[in-house]
Amino acid sequence: MRIGELSRRTGVAVPTIKYYVREGLLPAGSLTSPNQADYGEAHERRLRLIRGLLDVGGLSVSAVREVLAAVEDADRPVHKVLGAAQKSLTPPQGAGPEELAEAREAVAELVARRGWRVAPDGPPGEALAGALVTLRGLGHGGFEEVLDVYADACERIAAADLAYVRRAPDVERLVEGVVVGTVIGDAVLAALRRLAHTDASSRAYGGEAG
Amino acid sequence: MRIGELSRRTGVAVPTIKYYVREGLLPAGSLTSPNQADYGEAHERRLRLIRGLLDVGGLSVSAVREVLAAVEDADRPVHKVLGAAQKSLTPPQGAGPEELAEAREAVAELVARRGWRVAPDGPPGEALAGALVTLRGLGHGGFEEVLDVYADACERIAAADLAYVRRAPDVERLVEGVVVGTVIGDAVLAALRRLAHTDASSRAYGGEAG
Repeated sequence: MRIGELSRRTGVAVPTIKYYVREGLLPAGSLTSPNQADYGEAHERRLRLIRGLLDVGGLSVSAVREVLAAVEDADRPVHKVLGAAQKSLTPPQGAGPEELAEAREAVAELVARRGWRVAPDGPPGEALAGALVTLRGLGHGGFEEVLDVYADACERIAAADLAYVRRAPDVERLVEGVVVGTVIGDAVLAALRRLAHTDASSRAYGGEAG
Repeated sequence: MRIGELSRRTGVAVPTIKYYVREGLLPAGSLTSPNQADYGEAHERRLRLIRGLLDVGGLSVSAVREVLAAVEDADRPVHKVLGAAQKSLTPPQGAGPEELAEAREAVAELVARRGWRVAPDGPPGEALAGALVTLRGLGHGGFEEVLDVYADACERIAAADLAYVRRAPDVERLVEGVVVGTVIGDAVLAALRRLAHTDASSRAYGGEAG
């Protein structure tokens, strides 16, 4: 199909499609004449994935480029790329070395307590330590008491996610499922948590639905 | 304290602090001389909240401004502001009216099935519908089978969150707890989900921790 048809099908403007090609997110179409390129189903599918990662997942263009490179390279460990591609949750600049060391220790203790086979100092562990430093700095260190409730919930979710991606017919689809499930899954989870919050507080405080 | 001391305590550079004041995120210090302003504990606390929302929560400067206005105005319904302040999860541009209508119906069915006292067409419901349209467009509509597992998990999480914020000593701290718990809580949840994913896949595939 021509680029205009690709644009019509996906709702992405032609100049935006050209931008994604220039940025290396989308492969160029095959030239059918010096001024005309042909795009296929694979382009349409890839374009939808790009928009999902950008719009719903909130990733940056460079993070999307990195994630897509992992989707194409079956040898690359996707969960590591995803960790790095996450909007970098750097520890707050004001955190002293001792605050950070204490937060990392809390993460390591949590990982040990749950019996998780995970390196606590990888990207997600560091992200968690950064969030804990922020919470403590805000005087909300008490929030950590709910960490095990969150961890319980995440174990159930991870089991369901894994069961879903294992049904993929081939490796490429499996890797894509991991990417989609991780990034779009975060957005789904955040939205459901808001809905459950509203329900819980309207029950507790008797407010109307809204 | 002077602005230099505020900078030292929080790790936020002086020009950045001035930028937040100009942007209306941080109240100006009280002038002690024409060229010198005095900042207090409230400024330090507010500055830490701003950095948490920006760095860990990933909110934009304008979203932070909106959220902070809600923290100050006890009459404003915080969960509505938070919904609006969330990075706007607009439905994909390519979504036809029927795709969007179907996704909204799926959200309404989920809310009814869970017995949630929530309007399904508020900001989080719309965000969820947008994510479902994206999943379906990517050929991952099957991911919706895990929605109830996610919803179960979110009910437990919301109950724990509510129990935590209800311990706040006053309304201002309660509202701040809701903001912190919602925004930083999303980051905590995303990090824990990554850790649980790695654990689940290393058990399933026998890979090493990492």
